[in-house]
Amino acid sequence: MGLIVKKFGGTSVGTTERIQAVAEKLKASRDAGDDVVVVVSAMSGETNRLLSLAESVNSNPPPREVDVLLSTGEQVTIALLTMALEQIGCAARCYTGAQVSILTDSTFSKARIQDIDAESIREDLGAGRVVVVAGFQGVDENGAITTLGRGGSDTTAVALAAALEADECQIYTDVDGVYTSDPRVVPNARRLDKITVDEMLELSSLGSKVLQIRAVEFAGKYRVPLRVLSSFEEGPGTLITYEEEGMEEPLISGIAFNREEAKVSVIGVPDTPGIAAKILGPVADASIEVDMIIQNISQQGLTDFTFTVHKRDFQNTLDLVRSNAEVLGARDVYGDDNIVKISVVGVGMRSHAGVANTMFQTLSDEGINIQMISTSEIKISVVVEEKYLELGVRALHKAFELNKEPVAEQES
Amino acid sequence: MGLIVKKFGGTSVGTTERIQAVAEKLKASRDAGDDVVVVVSAMSGETNRLLSLAESVNSNPPPREVDVLLSTGEQVTIALLTMALEQIGCAARCYTGAQVSILTDSTFSKARIQDIDAESIREDLGAGRVVVVAGFQGVDENGAITTLGRGGSDTTAVALAAALEADECQIYTDVDGVYTSDPRVVPNARRLDKITVDEMLELSSLGSKVLQIRAVEFAGKYRVPLRVLSSFEEGPGTLITYEEEGMEEPLISGIAFNREEAKVSVIGVPDTPGIAAKILGPVADASIEVDMIIQNISQQGLTDFTFTVHKRDFQNTLDLVRSNAEVLGARDVYGDDNIVKISVVGVGMRSHAGVANTMFQTLSDEGINIQMISTSEIKISVVVEEKYLELGVRALHKAFELNKEPVAEQES
Repeated sequence: MGLIVKKFGGTSVGTTERIQAVAEKLKASRDAGDDVVVVVSAMSGETNRLLSLAESVNSNPPPREVDVLLSTGEQVTIALLTMALEQIGCAARCYTGAQVSILTDSTFSKARIQDIDAESIREDLGAGRVVVVAGFQGVDENGAITTLGRGGSDTTAVALAAALEADECQIYTDVDGVYTSDPRVVPNARRLDKITVDEMLELSSLGSKVLQIRAVEFAGKYRVPLRVLSSFEEGPGTLITYEEEGMEEPLISGIAFNREEAKVSVIGVPDTPGIAAKILGPVADASIEVDMIIQNISQQGLTDFTFTVHKRDFQNTLDLVRSNAEVLGARDVYGDDNIVKISVVGVGMRSHAGVANTMFQTLSDEGINIQMISTSEIKISVVVEEKYLELGVRALHKAFELNKEPVAEQES
Repeated sequence: MGLIVKKFGGTSVGTTERIQAVAEKLKASRDAGDDVVVVVSAMSGETNRLLSLAESVNSNPPPREVDVLLSTGEQVTIALLTMALEQIGCAARCYTGAQVSILTDSTFSKARIQDIDAESIREDLGAGRVVVVAGFQGVDENGAITTLGRGGSDTTAVALAAALEADECQIYTDVDGVYTSDPRVVPNARRLDKITVDEMLELSSLGSKVLQIRAVEFAGKYRVPLRVLSSFEEGPGTLITYEEEGMEEPLISGIAFNREEAKVSVIGVPDTPGIAAKILGPVADASIEVDMIIQNISQQGLTDFTFTVHKRDFQNTLDLVRSNAEVLGARDVYGDDNIVKISVVGVGMRSHAGVANTMFQTLSDEGINIQMISTSEIKISVVVEEKYLELGVRALHKAFELNKEPVAEQES
């Protein structure tokens, strides 16, 4: 067959029994003729256990040491999975991020992969071994252990698939594919057989947490065929594709939402060149990721500026911007973490008018007030009060008829 | 002051509270002007927890992966201790064995240190940092993680002290020094202020488990001043010295015992040149350490050969020797793990006759039958039935008057 990189998350390796089940799955794949590289996370609960140990000795543990601590989680899993493989007669070898070596920058706890030396992996595959790699972790140029942040194991898997030019990167999760929306919110949400990487990117970044956004970015950049499938059930999952010309696209692929964001508004700042950079500079310097950014039209030389960040960075961001308010000449700084972002995503909307209109009308019909709007080529996002999450998402799922199989997909 | 390498074992760092107490101790030492390098073990219980995880996925886990797994134990401790130091305003940095780097051979689970690159440690000390190093672990020339075997953290500490030319290597344990015998067996055993490295080596190898034998070997080889002291009580502990000329030695330093050994006897083998190598070759090839070796005089061209190994290697050794018995031409192979080795140790016995006689007479007076005898310049060991451990050790402690302060030591 081919070279497959598989990734199993914390729930899939949460007990030694589950690790043994993963080993059986891997052996079946190798016995079917595949070359198999597998990336694993820490056993579920382990990362939190380690973090609580850290907090009991330091109220604000230094990030360099947090990474030394957390990276032990995956190291335990790779050792156990390799032992389980050897036990059932499947030759295997395991590597930490530093050993592979997955070279990253030095942004502890949020490091970015810069290079992978896949040589030793190729040698092991050539010798018929399954190669087990610790996800989520790497090493910087000084030899310090780094981590990629939560969910970083997906990124490790895709980066390895790219470096090895794998035939497919398979992400095993606790869901059996990508859905038109979150089935917990929309009971008749439908599994998609295929989705374009652009749509997936929007869905992922907007809070349909099947995959980590950086993993999808990587996959898109290196054109790694990516498949999301279930650790616990058989099934084809959802294949993430690169747009094929001439293929008829469904109008809309899905409705995503994200309740993990908070918004910060800077009111009445002078509308001078570079004001956005002045506001967001200190935020970026603190390695805080900004999502939506909106600047209203200027009135009497003053403008209002609103952006969203992850809720965990909310207080920190608010403090930073407030301490900067006088220098900026801002009249006021507001924050609100009682919001949800709802997004309509689909590559088809590029060639169809009226999507935005349908979206705004549907929300209006339900009496939901829109606080922010942001658009891209293939998505429209709105921020509304958090309590409207379920109502808004269900109404939009119905309005765009996502419960029905689209004609284009049936033909493919 | 000077450069001190301190080592804290698993019990001393068994909880986050104890890790914080160790941090305070280290800060006090640094505040007093010392350059401090600290070596730590896994939190007590952690190694066993990890081993039982391993056994649940593989009945005979491969050693390479066992080392990947076990090395996470110390990695957790170094991260937590460094965090605890930073919390109390004491700059610190931590390193795994691979990071330092502690280069070893590739004998997984029993690796031996070959070289240490102490450069980064010197840089950190120069910058005023306490340097926290994971004990027990290293890295081989292929980048694979190795461990030194149980108790290897002592060896790490001494090897670092040698590489850094430290002024003292301080081993913190749950006892407050080296005693004339085990206080649990001999209630009036006495703490020694000083002991020579040769005596310590014999006491350590004979089962007074204050220090790991390889650590003491290393210390002797590189003349590292070694001090054993308590993690939990104040006190000077016991300094391990290199023999000073002209110093009057006490006759006997202590009575050691070891109930962790088992004996294997090969009966009636042809007394030909090379027979010992033929018997012990396969045992050495299996990386099993042999302690006592005795060959009786030849009778009618046949000889009997007896040796002892650690109890954990007993069955394996017996199987090896038995499978080899036919090739050896041996009449029979016996094993017995119901034994204890009792040893009288002291550099003074070199210049005093009669120590052996006193020892054998004392045991005889108690009705204890001696199964094996082995002697060196500074010790006499006997193997007796295990049930005589307490009786034999107490009788010898009394016979050599070890409860009394010796004249020579009082003057020093």
